[in-house]
Amino acid sequence: MKTRSLIVALCATSLPLFAAPLSPAWAEEGMWTFDAFPSAKVGQAYGFAPDQKWLDRVRLSALRLTGGCSSSIVSNQGLVLTNHHCVRDCAQANSTEKTDYAAEGFLAVTLADEKKCPGQQAEQLTAITDVTADIMKAIGDATGPALAKARDGQIATIEKAGCTDLAKERCQVVTLFGGGQYKLYKYRKFSDVRLVYAPEADAAFFGGDPDNFNFPRYDLDAAFLRIYENGKPFATPAHLTWAARAPKEGEVVFIAGNPGSTQRLYTQAQFTMLRDVTLPATELYIAELRGRIIAASAGDAEKTRTGSELLFGMENSYKALYGQWQALLNPEFAGKLAAGEADLKAKVAADPATAAKVGDPWTQVAKAQATYREIYKPYAFLETRGNISDLYNYAKQLVRAAKERTKPNGERLPGYTDSQLPLLEKNLLDPRPIYPWLEELVLSYWMSKTREALTTDDPRVKAMLGKESPEQLGHRLVTGTTLADPAVRKALFDGGLDAIKASKDPLIQFALANDDAARALRDRYRFEVEAPTIAAQSKLAQARFAAYGTSLYPDATFTLRLSYGGVKGWTYQGVTVPTTTYFKGMFERATGADPFKLPPKVLAAQSKIDMTKPVDFVSDNDIIGGNSGSPILDKTGSVIGAVFDGNIHSLGGAYGFDPAVNRSVSVSTVAVEEALTKIYPAPRLIKELHGG
Amino acid sequence: MKTRSLIVALCATSLPLFAAPLSPAWAEEGMWTFDAFPSAKVGQAYGFAPDQKWLDRVRLSALRLTGGCSSSIVSNQGLVLTNHHCVRDCAQANSTEKTDYAAEGFLAVTLADEKKCPGQQAEQLTAITDVTADIMKAIGDATGPALAKARDGQIATIEKAGCTDLAKERCQVVTLFGGGQYKLYKYRKFSDVRLVYAPEADAAFFGGDPDNFNFPRYDLDAAFLRIYENGKPFATPAHLTWAARAPKEGEVVFIAGNPGSTQRLYTQAQFTMLRDVTLPATELYIAELRGRIIAASAGDAEKTRTGSELLFGMENSYKALYGQWQALLNPEFAGKLAAGEADLKAKVAADPATAAKVGDPWTQVAKAQATYREIYKPYAFLETRGNISDLYNYAKQLVRAAKERTKPNGERLPGYTDSQLPLLEKNLLDPRPIYPWLEELVLSYWMSKTREALTTDDPRVKAMLGKESPEQLGHRLVTGTTLADPAVRKALFDGGLDAIKASKDPLIQFALANDDAARALRDRYRFEVEAPTIAAQSKLAQARFAAYGTSLYPDATFTLRLSYGGVKGWTYQGVTVPTTTYFKGMFERATGADPFKLPPKVLAAQSKIDMTKPVDFVSDNDIIGGNSGSPILDKTGSVIGAVFDGNIHSLGGAYGFDPAVNRSVSVSTVAVEEALTKIYPAPRLIKELHGG
Repeated sequence: MKTRSLIVALCATSLPLFAAPLSPAWAEEGMWTFDAFPSAKVGQAYGFAPDQKWLDRVRLSALRLTGGCSSSIVSNQGLVLTNHHCVRDCAQANSTEKTDYAAEGFLAVTLADEKKCPGQQAEQLTAITDVTADIMKAIGDATGPALAKARDGQIATIEKAGCTDLAKERCQVVTLFGGGQYKLYKYRKFSDVRLVYAPEADAAFFGGDPDNFNFPRYDLDAAFLRIYENGKPFATPAHLTWAARAPKEGEVVFIAGNPGSTQRLYTQAQFTMLRDVTLPATELYIAELRGRIIAASAGDAEKTRTGSELLFGMENSYKALYGQWQALLNPEFAGKLAAGEADLKAKVAADPATAAKVGDPWTQVAKAQATYREIYKPYAFLETRGNISDLYNYAKQLVRAAKERTKPNGERLPGYTDSQLPLLEKNLLDPRPIYPWLEELVLSYWMSKTREALTTDDPRVKAMLGKESPEQLGHRLVTGTTLADPAVRKALFDGGLDAIKASKDPLIQFALANDDAARALRDRYRFEVEAPTIAAQSKLAQARFAAYGTSLYPDATFTLRLSYGGVKGWTYQGVTVPTTTYFKGMFERATGADPFKLPPKVLAAQSKIDMTKPVDFVSDNDIIGGNSGSPILDKTGSVIGAVFDGNIHSLGGAYGFDPAVNRSVSVSTVAVEEALTKIYPAPRLIKELHGG
Repeated sequence: MKTRSLIVALCATSLPLFAAPLSPAWAEEGMWTFDAFPSAKVGQAYGFAPDQKWLDRVRLSALRLTGGCSSSIVSNQGLVLTNHHCVRDCAQANSTEKTDYAAEGFLAVTLADEKKCPGQQAEQLTAITDVTADIMKAIGDATGPALAKARDGQIATIEKAGCTDLAKERCQVVTLFGGGQYKLYKYRKFSDVRLVYAPEADAAFFGGDPDNFNFPRYDLDAAFLRIYENGKPFATPAHLTWAARAPKEGEVVFIAGNPGSTQRLYTQAQFTMLRDVTLPATELYIAELRGRIIAASAGDAEKTRTGSELLFGMENSYKALYGQWQALLNPEFAGKLAAGEADLKAKVAADPATAAKVGDPWTQVAKAQATYREIYKPYAFLETRGNISDLYNYAKQLVRAAKERTKPNGERLPGYTDSQLPLLEKNLLDPRPIYPWLEELVLSYWMSKTREALTTDDPRVKAMLGKESPEQLGHRLVTGTTLADPAVRKALFDGGLDAIKASKDPLIQFALANDDAARALRDRYRFEVEAPTIAAQSKLAQARFAAYGTSLYPDATFTLRLSYGGVKGWTYQGVTVPTTTYFKGMFERATGADPFKLPPKVLAAQSKIDMTKPVDFVSDNDIIGGNSGSPILDKTGSVIGAVFDGNIHSLGGAYGFDPAVNRSVSVSTVAVEEALTKIYPAPRLIKELHGG
């Protein structure tokens, strides 16, 4: 499953999504920006070259979902296609002990039944402007803290100047090629996003975690949202055409979405850090937490319901990161990465002018990584791992936002500038259910692991825990706080630093008391790891442009990209996997036992369903987590499916694309229509999809 | 905490404890066999050289505990000193919902109150005989399966011939130097071991998991057992003198015990396998299971009680293996290991005669490791990971024992030969409490992880699960089996293969149905990994003897060893840690919150306790898991403490000893006496310890 938010929350790899062009060895594919799509190359390979009109229409139809997914407008009334797993949190937020829309599905019979999704915002990319020169000028010869402050200050200034109507617009400067390019992305934003349709979890996620990232697959992992403006559906001519037709073997297909993060040309030092430190630590953290959630909710229907979204996220992240880690541990795969670096070094060495200009950025990166390794544990535990608790995250954001808003826009921590505050405020203030048992569990877990990692005698741990155990403290904080109430959060947000300091809320006090220690680590990371790495990556980008030309695509940055490829299966260890699965196979795979249990409505419709119709299919488009919900388009620009996953071989795609086996997995529009006709009859939606 | 059983159960690194002498670079210390102790060297360093009489007395006083610990006889009535954490399982097995001896402590007021420890056997090493020539002759030029069968058959034959009175004796051929030497160890065995005294868990394990493997430390981690024969205490003149005196800074001390397993001269290929495959996989497996046990027992007193021993084992293994893994990931540490291999290779290359004789064993090991990597997941999941369930382990052992006993002694799988069956039978048939909730949890967990690792579509997984989920199957097997009843197990064991095949017990049927798949992997491991590795290690041993001489000690093999060293602290990153802690510090560290909560009896005795008396102390003896409970002796051979842990720097000791920071941690006999006088008054024991 290709979402990205939890991975980012857990990984503490929040460098601004280092971008780096592919070395030529693996450069057959790519996640291309819309302002540099290689249409001619596609035309040569597939006999069809998207023109500017095609590209513009797709760009305006594809929406980023701030929850960590992608999507597309598929009607002139703002109907939005995405995945079930991208709306799980919305379905769960709208559920109660008596009605579980995440598990049992949801269908809005009328417009009035559509339900608001807390924290969700849809964003339409309207313009891309190159601001590289501006940023580079601001940075000048600065290094370390000065570099970070100059760069981040200039970004804040550009973003503020770029978007004046913050109710409708969002501006974001995107760092591409690790600092080689900066682009201002301007978005039309939709803060009112509502849930229209989601099937049951057992249909959308049939096969559960065992089948996740696998194929053949039989998941109805599609859902519909709708974007609203002023309380009405957003009417727009910019939308995709819905084509409920089966994919054709070998046909060219395009995926427009927001791949979250790739690290394809990290240096060897960065890969080593990932392989030996970041990924293992993150996996171990997730593994035990996963176990705790599973056992705490076993046999308890309400805890199972309320814990399911977090558990899904943990399991999905665990499996995705596991695949990434294994790729780096694979001698052959790792050898290709090493060869890529060696090739670039050799080319630079053979080009004196470039060599003189770029120096030795590899050693600079290695030094920064050595610092990162040194601070990793305290940084991860004190600054990032606690954010998995909604309540603690509220408290921390309220404390940070209050402190930062006392500063001029250009001097604030990234994340708290004027251009970024509206989404932060929405996430803070949208009403959203809080599950105290789960909050206690994750908060106590985080604190116990912080003590385990930093030791009992670390002064920061002593300050955090005092004389309480992590369990006692977690219980006291969760039962004592009133931050679950959006009105309380709003009062604290509006009240600023005075209100925060005056607050008697134990969680606010806790976040305030621990903020200096956490912030000190954030500063060390920002100034001693991030800043020198950005400087070095900027040189590496120059080296790559000199060595391989400028027709390269940047690493993924959770911004809109377009990938192309063909509908095709793969062969691995002598086994050939065909492109498409059919309803017949779904029923054959069902055992009746979780997670291979089809829901009652699907079973009831069995005799009506056309067993020869496609369910899911694969293509060799280059995607990564964050692409979930992306439309998969044919050459006419019509949508024939929604991407919801990659195969198991796609997990190494974070570091390198292997065209022989890396595949994206999509749910067919045919399957969606079959479901909306035979299983969950939704004439209103069918009509709308067909332009009625 | 230095036990070894759980680590072995989980690691699937059950090669016969590859032994290899240290390279000279790190050879200052060692875990020496009693037939090759370097007395002269000790004499030069410390002015005291143990003579044969000293060595014989210590050897006969030190007992191996088959549960995975060490211990020593400290009275002429068979009183045995060990650690609390070595008797936890016995205390728990004797507890009920109403009486929790593991948590609340136990003291037998009279002899009649002493309680039998299921599965526990104490073993006194009475003779060591070199059988290398015998085994080498049997092996001849064989390779692969023929080598394994010839070697294991000859071992079975030698063991059978060596011990004729199986009620009192046990014979075991020990593979030293990875196959360079074979020694027959003959033991006097004591199958009736009873619990005499154990303090509360909160006193013995004060600081809990956070303080485990750390120092300064304040744990009363001592306990007493007693060995019985014919229902009476075993009277023996061979015992240590109890000396309740404080350790002296710098004095020479000896530790006699059974270090479980070290891998100090694994080849680089083996270290890579550990670092990249075995250790990460094991840690991930433990991490989630740990989380499940914690969450399943949270807030439930009875589950907390019944789950505590397994949880302790998981947390202890997790931390120990984590330290080992981090050592291999540490560039400096790993660099020393690589340099050791390079040095040996260079010496062999410079010595044509040796080079011709040993060939290239490194490449042979690397090839075997490549195979191991290929089969690791199915081998670990189908053959070893399930053994953590007591019930499944009973079923599997019953099935295997029944099958193997139909074969001649010399053709059986290792573990099922005539010399090994008595302990297997004891472990199978001793009455022991079974906790169904915990059995369901671990069994379902194992099956779900097996599916996760091998995929749903693996035919072995399909055969294992059928149409049930792991949870359904775990529930059905645990609720349906009658193997918790020792009489049922006895009937099946005595009934042999016919009884097994006729059994309707669902867990027996399950084990029987899955045995072929598991055994096939065991065979592949034994014939394709173990056998070629043994052949290569035998050559490596020859290379080392040629390069460094024969005054080397073999890697640990859970057999009796003697290490020497001084009572001394260490300095790390500018901080100097003193040798000894005192009762004063214990009370200062107590917060009242778990796990820094002193038990009521300790708090009640606070005014009586002499705060200046020592609790725990460190020395630079070379030890490893399995040494738990070992006596620490002064030069008179008197016992001044019981080893219960190593410091955090000791965890890399599996691969190399760093004399600057690697320390063993012991509880002082002074602290034990203070406890038995002021906290848990035990005049009977005090009198006995002082020869009364």
